[in-house]
Amino acid sequence: MDIATLIGIVGGFGLIVATIILGGNPGGFVDVPSVVVVIGGTFASVFVMFPLKAVVGTFKVGMKTLLFKAPDPNDVIRTISGLADTARRESLVALEKVAIDDPYLKKGVMLVVDGSSEALVRSVMEIELDFMKQRHRMGQGVFKGLGTMAPAFGMIGTLIGLVNMLQNLEDPASIGPAMAVALLTTFYGAVLANVVFLPLSKKLEDRSEEEALYMQIMIEGVSSIQKGDHPTVVKEKLQAFLAPALREESS
Amino acid sequence: MDIATLIGIVGGFGLIVATIILGGNPGGFVDVPSVVVVIGGTFASVFVMFPLKAVVGTFKVGMKTLLFKAPDPNDVIRTISGLADTARRESLVALEKVAIDDPYLKKGVMLVVDGSSEALVRSVMEIELDFMKQRHRMGQGVFKGLGTMAPAFGMIGTLIGLVNMLQNLEDPASIGPAMAVALLTTFYGAVLANVVFLPLSKKLEDRSEEEALYMQIMIEGVSSIQKGDHPTVVKEKLQAFLAPALREESS
Amino acid sequence: MDIATLIGIVGGFGLIVATIILGGNPGGFVDVPSVVVVIGGTFASVFVMFPLKAVVGTFKVGMKTLLFKAPDPNDVIRTISGLADTARRESLVALEKVAIDDPYLKKGVMLVVDGSSEALVRSVMEIELDFMKQRHRMGQGVFKGLGTMAPAFGMIGTLIGLVNMLQNLEDPASIGPAMAVALLTTFYGAVLANVVFLPLSKKLEDRSEEEALYMQIMIEGVSSIQKGDHPTVVKEKLQAFLAPALREESS
Amino acid sequence: MDIATLIGIVGGFGLIVATIILGGNPGGFVDVPSVVVVIGGTFASVFVMFPLKAVVGTFKVGMKTLLFKAPDPNDVIRTISGLADTARRESLVALEKVAIDDPYLKKGVMLVVDGSSEALVRSVMEIELDFMKQRHRMGQGVFKGLGTMAPAFGMIGTLIGLVNMLQNLEDPASIGPAMAVALLTTFYGAVLANVVFLPLSKKLEDRSEEEALYMQIMIEGVSSIQKGDHPTVVKEKLQAFLAPALREESS
Amino acid sequence: MDIATLIGIVGGFGLIVATIILGGNPGGFVDVPSVVVVIGGTFASVFVMFPLKAVVGTFKVGMKTLLFKAPDPNDVIRTISGLADTARRESLVALEKVAIDDPYLKKGVMLVVDGSSEALVRSVMEIELDFMKQRHRMGQGVFKGLGTMAPAFGMIGTLIGLVNMLQNLEDPASIGPAMAVALLTTFYGAVLANVVFLPLSKKLEDRSEEEALYMQIMIEGVSSIQKGDHPTVVKEKLQAFLAPALREESS
Repeated sequence: MDIATLIGIVGGFGLIVATIILGGNPGGFVDVPSVVVVIGGTFASVFVMFPLKAVVGTFKVGMKTLLFKAPDPNDVIRTISGLADTARRESLVALEKVAIDDPYLKKGVMLVVDGSSEALVRSVMEIELDFMKQRHRMGQGVFKGLGTMAPAFGMIGTLIGLVNMLQNLEDPASIGPAMAVALLTTFYGAVLANVVFLPLSKKLEDRSEEEALYMQIMIEGVSSIQKGDHPTVVKEKLQAFLAPALREESS
Repeated sequence: MDIATLIGIVGGFGLIVATIILGGNPGGFVDVPSVVVVIGGTFASVFVMFPLKAVVGTFKVGMKTLLFKAPDPNDVIRTISGLADTARRESLVALEKVAIDDPYLKKGVMLVVDGSSEALVRSVMEIELDFMKQRHRMGQGVFKGLGTMAPAFGMIGTLIGLVNMLQNLEDPASIGPAMAVALLTTFYGAVLANVVFLPLSKKLEDRSEEEALYMQIMIEGVSSIQKGDHPTVVKEKLQAFLAPALREESS
Repeated sequence: MDIATLIGIVGGFGLIVATIILGGNPGGFVDVPSVVVVIGGTFASVFVMFPLKAVVGTFKVGMKTLLFKAPDPNDVIRTISGLADTARRESLVALEKVAIDDPYLKKGVMLVVDGSSEALVRSVMEIELDFMKQRHRMGQGVFKGLGTMAPAFGMIGTLIGLVNMLQNLEDPASIGPAMAVALLTTFYGAVLANVVFLPLSKKLEDRSEEEALYMQIMIEGVSSIQKGDHPTVVKEKLQAFLAPALREESS
Repeated sequence: MDIATLIGIVGGFGLIVATIILGGNPGGFVDVPSVVVVIGGTFASVFVMFPLKAVVGTFKVGMKTLLFKAPDPNDVIRTISGLADTARRESLVALEKVAIDDPYLKKGVMLVVDGSSEALVRSVMEIELDFMKQRHRMGQGVFKGLGTMAPAFGMIGTLIGLVNMLQNLEDPASIGPAMAVALLTTFYGAVLANVVFLPLSKKLEDRSEEEALYMQIMIEGVSSIQKGDHPTVVKEKLQAFLAPALREESS
Repeated sequence: MDIATLIGIVGGFGLIVATIILGGNPGGFVDVPSVVVVIGGTFASVFVMFPLKAVVGTFKVGMKTLLFKAPDPNDVIRTISGLADTARRESLVALEKVAIDDPYLKKGVMLVVDGSSEALVRSVMEIELDFMKQRHRMGQGVFKGLGTMAPAFGMIGTLIGLVNMLQNLEDPASIGPAMAVALLTTFYGAVLANVVFLPLSKKLEDRSEEEALYMQIMIEGVSSIQKGDHPTVVKEKLQAFLAPALREESS
């Protein structure tokens, strides 16, 4: 899934670069001051918009979106029904010795092992879920802010270029190239917003819903284990969270 | 109803092509690199926006929207009251032998035959309804994403063309055609968005509501059969879901 | 009230036509292919957006909006308190012989005469109210769709005209008129959207609220009659639905 | 507060007129047909959008917004605690003889004097509050409609001017002035929308909330008087509606 | 955090000024009448939109956003658990002598010391919280209004400049500079909106949520102290409001 993100961004840039090269004058599309004013200005405005930590955290979030390998939900369900099996055959305390990869699931199971009340386990896990959602919402907000500000600074850059050009019309030969350079900032702003920032903001939204689903499965699973449900019942309960096509037949 | 979708898309393209031909220079409206950058870039961005499976699934959804023949809701009601009749004259178990075309209705009836509790039958059918709605919402989102990105990439293509043109103003004779080609991507983007993507996104929304209505009729119908309601009562209950003009007089 | 709709549309078109005639060249504003591509394309897209029946029904709805004479709410209240009077002096069954113009009110009264339970009468009338609202929402959606698509097809038409013009710059004398014709589709789209489609969509919204108010008065009135309320009480209850300035003094 | 509205509108127009005069050619900014088509067209569309009475009522509402002097909420509270004092020292009936300026408060007190139940007094006053809000919402809608339609008709006027100009390019000297006149409608539309209509729509929203606050204070006050609360308690209860900085110390 | 706001605004302006200087003609970007019409007109419209006090208060709010140093939430929690400790070891009344910096926390503690009921303490503190949110919402509204009106007045200024220029085309040499000046207002409007007003409006939204969080921690803390909770319990309860990464280990 994360490959689609990479393919999409690389493909979008590739198509644009190819179109530029086909035009026969790729050098005309590179203008360092234009790049600086669009990217710099966009980030400056986003620094005003959001707390410093949120902007910095966004890059990590963006990376994670690219690299995140969504686990097979059936694996999650299998792990949990395995834990239910152990809990039933041995005891809840025996879960302490089982190795659990997912830190969120592990935290929930440890709370059960410690003998916390069901309400406490659920509340602790749900607070964590809420904070995950809030962090993602902040990240989406940052990408959306970048996607709104990039075209705005593109336009500001173009206005600067146009004013400069209009005040120096003596040399007709320079008008065309000057206007071309003026348009570059609008071009950079449009590319950054539509190839990178806005699509990533949308992806983050989908990813957040997906991660929330895994966490909800884990909350229900831990709760079901704590209640002493039979592993088959645990599995059936958790499969209700999956689209019918994704459900495994319980053999 | 699906014929309207086809007529609308074909008609929209037809009118645009006719207008182009009337202009006397249809060849001037075809530019393969422009087509590639608009369509390619639009899909690249949508690949970043949505999980790979969602984008691929969208084509199936689009096809289904074109080909889907909405059943007459009175047929659905008649089928269900027929089942109610069988259940009353023979028994709930006798429903097992009745041939039911609709897989959703069939699933519900089979659960009843298996002796599942009323709450379980309803819950299983409602989860399925929720997943249908969610899949359709994802499909609408993909079409809306395509409809937003097509004009954006149209503008990006036009900016590339304008920058190229402005840097080569030496030959006045080439300015017009170069600008014409630059405008083509904006044209392609506007046509794709307004003739295909945005209208299909809206249609999918209507279709989703319509399908949800059929499924709700089936949920109520199965529930009513399970309660042992008289076929006439079943029919009356279900007709409340229809617009007055669509209701059949119960003879 | 409907006269305002007519005056508004005729006045809007009149002002535009007068401005055109003042410009001295009214012939230059008529271009049949441009009219066809804007109107045709707009409707083609709306056919994709909505079920066929909804688009066709919209014209009836539009006509009704133009011709609909809103009844005086005090007449409605007087009619209902008259019915309450008859019901009290004679009996609920005596209402059967009273002539009632409004089919919705008549249906409710007939249900009461038939001895239906209060809950059933209310539920039947409220379902009808919901369907009225839903039909109006669909109608508003169609007009809003037309108002969104008209400028889009105006822009598409202008892009076609510009591309044609730019590829034929040899004859300088033809540039002006060609660009004028290109702009006509944008002009047509803007006029259709802002003089007809968007305002009618808004009017339909107001009208839907108004009609819902009458129907709610009728629901409460029928319910009050069924409870055997005194005509004066019925009247007082129903006047609570009116703006203070509209309330009649009960003499 | 109303002075700010007046200063804002006069100041906005003043700055624009001063800029025009500085440009040295104020006569070039007056074109009667352009004024007529923008203002006339805007109102024509708004007549289609809203019931006739709503549009006419809007001017009264607009005037009221300009001239309305917001009462000091502490005066309102003092009046009500004065009434509570009278009611306690003498009787509820004694309130009949007290002169009350505000018609809304008076109506509520009269209902109490007439011995109406607490629920009835509250319900009558709340219905009145709802109608006030609805009237204001309609007024805001009309101003928002004017603010949307003014730029649209500005654009329509400019398109008419451009088409006329493009069809008469023979005399190069007339091109500039013709285009200047064409731009005037866009200019008028932008000024009307941004200096008058949209800001007034926003102000009406604030004003509506403010008036609703006074009315809520009165509802609570009348209810508190009817319950026989001590004047000090009445005052304390009502001061909870005020921002801390506005609260008077009860001496 | 407030440093990010300052860096963002200074950085945004710095980049724009640097780009202008690089263009070689910084004098061409200063035009006093253009500055006056954009800033003056923007504020004039905002004076119509909002009550006078709200606009004036906004500058204070804006300053506060720049200078506000967000306290470490763990400090707040430590202070409150210190108070809980004092209350437990000595008595609730002993809290009167403890020095409390935060006026909001102090007010709540004083209410507890005065022996007010738990419901009253909570209600008084929550009303204060609501007023804080409302004041911030008003402030955000003012900045959003400024951010919407600045580009609108930029466009109005440009239209004035264009009309002036088009009516004086005799001197070709003046066309370029005249158009450059006309574009300046659009440039000023875009810079003000995107570097200052819109980002500050967004920051205020984040800041308001942050401040509400501190106040909610204080409400819960005071309530917990009043209930006589053990300091450790108080601390645990309040840490649930923090993101996991911010929680201190209770040693």
